[in-house]
Amino acid sequence: MEKKDIRGITVNKEQDMPEWYGQVVVKGELADYSPVRGTMIIRPYGYSIWEGIMGYFNGILKKRGVQNAYFPVFIPKKFFEKEAEHAKGFAPEVAWVKGKDEEESLALRPTSETIIYDSYSRWIRSHRDLPLRINQWCNIIRWEVKDVKLFLRSREFLWQEGHCVYESREECDKETLGILDEYEKLLQEILAVPVIKGMKSRMETFAGAEYTTTIEAFMPDGKFLQCGTSHNLGQGFAKAFGISFLGKDKESHLPWQNSWGFSTRLIGAAVMQHGDDKGLILPPKIAPIQAVIVPIVFDEGKEEILKECARIRKALGSFRIHIDSREGYSPGWKYNDWELKGVPLRIEIGPKDIEKKRVVIARRDTGEKIDVKDSAVKAKIAEILDDIQNHLFTRAHEKLKHSIVETSSWEQFLKAIEGKKIAFSPFCGSVQCEEAIKEKTSANSRCIPFGQKEELKRCIHCGKDAYSSAYFGKCY
Amino acid sequence: MEKKDIRGITVNKEQDMPEWYGQVVVKGELADYSPVRGTMIIRPYGYSIWEGIMGYFNGILKKRGVQNAYFPVFIPKKFFEKEAEHAKGFAPEVAWVKGKDEEESLALRPTSETIIYDSYSRWIRSHRDLPLRINQWCNIIRWEVKDVKLFLRSREFLWQEGHCVYESREECDKETLGILDEYEKLLQEILAVPVIKGMKSRMETFAGAEYTTTIEAFMPDGKFLQCGTSHNLGQGFAKAFGISFLGKDKESHLPWQNSWGFSTRLIGAAVMQHGDDKGLILPPKIAPIQAVIVPIVFDEGKEEILKECARIRKALGSFRIHIDSREGYSPGWKYNDWELKGVPLRIEIGPKDIEKKRVVIARRDTGEKIDVKDSAVKAKIAEILDDIQNHLFTRAHEKLKHSIVETSSWEQFLKAIEGKKIAFSPFCGSVQCEEAIKEKTSANSRCIPFGQKEELKRCIHCGKDAYSSAYFGKCY
Repeated sequence: MEKKDIRGITVNKEQDMPEWYGQVVVKGELADYSPVRGTMIIRPYGYSIWEGIMGYFNGILKKRGVQNAYFPVFIPKKFFEKEAEHAKGFAPEVAWVKGKDEEESLALRPTSETIIYDSYSRWIRSHRDLPLRINQWCNIIRWEVKDVKLFLRSREFLWQEGHCVYESREECDKETLGILDEYEKLLQEILAVPVIKGMKSRMETFAGAEYTTTIEAFMPDGKFLQCGTSHNLGQGFAKAFGISFLGKDKESHLPWQNSWGFSTRLIGAAVMQHGDDKGLILPPKIAPIQAVIVPIVFDEGKEEILKECARIRKALGSFRIHIDSREGYSPGWKYNDWELKGVPLRIEIGPKDIEKKRVVIARRDTGEKIDVKDSAVKAKIAEILDDIQNHLFTRAHEKLKHSIVETSSWEQFLKAIEGKKIAFSPFCGSVQCEEAIKEKTSANSRCIPFGQKEELKRCIHCGKDAYSSAYFGKCY
Repeated sequence: MEKKDIRGITVNKEQDMPEWYGQVVVKGELADYSPVRGTMIIRPYGYSIWEGIMGYFNGILKKRGVQNAYFPVFIPKKFFEKEAEHAKGFAPEVAWVKGKDEEESLALRPTSETIIYDSYSRWIRSHRDLPLRINQWCNIIRWEVKDVKLFLRSREFLWQEGHCVYESREECDKETLGILDEYEKLLQEILAVPVIKGMKSRMETFAGAEYTTTIEAFMPDGKFLQCGTSHNLGQGFAKAFGISFLGKDKESHLPWQNSWGFSTRLIGAAVMQHGDDKGLILPPKIAPIQAVIVPIVFDEGKEEILKECARIRKALGSFRIHIDSREGYSPGWKYNDWELKGVPLRIEIGPKDIEKKRVVIARRDTGEKIDVKDSAVKAKIAEILDDIQNHLFTRAHEKLKHSIVETSSWEQFLKAIEGKKIAFSPFCGSVQCEEAIKEKTSANSRCIPFGQKEELKRCIHCGKDAYSSAYFGKCY
């Protein structure tokens, strides 16, 4: 029996999370390291998760009336300099290209506000042109990244960025928050990753935005992972780029803008959240393969078993099913391989099963084995997939809830952060105070949840007035 | 009545093709010029054509077992230098990025053979890993382009590139040609653009390939447009990048490889092929909107008409339908707008039509107006859309056929080329001879059709032995 070069995961997830994470991503064939510093390769299995996310989110965009487009990867230096805060915020992240005979340096987009809003200034004339809602799926360059963490942090990654323009602040606010809700749904309902939702502090606000909203996942190693942000840009970019429209009142007005995005990082969030010591566990709604059929064949009766596998696959037409008919690998080797790859269900079909008119279904999340009658297989698979999806979310959600510690003193705060928990603490909101917290603890505020009772408290760090509390923690 | 800033196309397609082309692309809102030298912006209407092409071709890839993935945009200099011919061929087209603290310069991908095959050398071990079939959709940089021709030639464009590895030459040949057939289908059956198919001459072969196959469209201004190429790379890259596999015979072998691609240029091909002096004409199979419903409303009875429009749209659920209910524009203004945008069908619904239980359908390609009974509208629309698709292809195909001139003397050849025709001429195939032809006429060989009778002739230019004939012409 020839063996493929997979030796399974060699470390314990709890004991060495970074090493575990690297191994499951690489051995699970989601992504690979690249010889180019700071970059990654998204392999077909990982890319098909991204395709699933794109497909889902394109449906949401279409419903909302957001259209896809494509803008240049090159951004002239002078565009960056137009919005002062934005320029300052992104300066260290930019890679520059300059041809011999070119007048000026071109940035490789670290985000596309400036190149897109230059076009908007030419396309928008009248209130009839608004709202203008455009999204693009593209590659993004953040040059300052030297050491890649697959999916989580790399010099180049893939993302979507939405850029909308409205007549009024109200419309802008509404969609900025509406998109954040869509992001929350994508994370929680599709990727089964629970998130905390709210506003960013001043320090963490997007460079050039009036305010930034965010969804934050909390990873099993006690670090936050920012999973999507939606910014109300106010009128600052409109002013800087000369975007104005003739209103119904025949006067010229500045429009309101937002921008919002999530990236291939989401794949990393799902991997880190759900996987175990055997490898990946993919949520059924996003798993490229929802169930793998493993035929248990002997020299005799092989044909019959393969025929039965094909019959079952056909009966399961509406699911994403794969038959592993590879020769030269034992069923046990295949079980391990698909467990490593996180396929939610395995269907075993052997001579005994045919005899008994049943199949054996094994759940990846619990390891449970279930005998199912041939005739009931479709309904049962649907039911179990739903159950796995819910189980993964609920399990993660319980962990998240139990990680939150309300703190009212600096000692409690320190204890929570050192214990890899989330500190929920009154916060004055000042940049200076947050910088000091970060300096002392390497944690900072991750988000300020919406809808808090306005109640005057003392800031957990500086003791000054605090009208709301924030979630604090370390982050990726 | 307020008017939008569209003034229609101001030049004649036949008289000034380049100006006409730029106007229909920009005024039709498919794409726009960008302030960044050599680059373009693909606007939502143009991008949705690209989404249609991607959707169609992803279906083809899936059927063939080709999977999508994503590789870095940055390619180390040393990778380029590994395959000598390839490096030489792409040298002038490359943009380089170099960070302060980086060891070596990185190219922005002008094509991804080298960065992908480096990975393949690590992923491929055994015959069990073959065939390996991967495709990526990405942006491509060809730095040498200074002056953009929207969709046709730009510093950055979008494409797909397939990269497959096989055990044998036979498999490699088969899929190299199989993909070319898929490209031909995409062009002819979906974009309604007829193509000539065949081998590239030595001079036109992809840098590093054993042979290149191509599909070539012929534009109304008498220039060829290369629309897709499929290369058999032989074993050269495998040797250069150290890709080898352990065969069933337990020996180490070099595999065979191919690569193949088409780009957003295809949108330009369809635009140039079909459009007329009123603007775009989009083939129904790829048109983002297949039929636009224009309500003809008066102050009285407006509600009823809009209700009828919604009813008709619902009845046409399986088609891509848009209702133009914009206020403040006359029906006539809307007709012009949608004609400019090339929507295949317009459905007019006014009070008289409701009375007579009919709609009026106008064809974009012929201008013909057809009265259709309410009850028959769905079947009729399907029929007319089919007819438009066929008509566009047939019309273009007739033009192509009539543009081909078989030449057997240099005088005939010159006359054909000067007359903006395609010369079909015996050709020795030598690089030197082709360079001389290009020097003298600015035309060169575009393709050597498959399946020619082997018959010894005299080369149209040098008079030496020629075993086959090639299509010659100028090109984009």
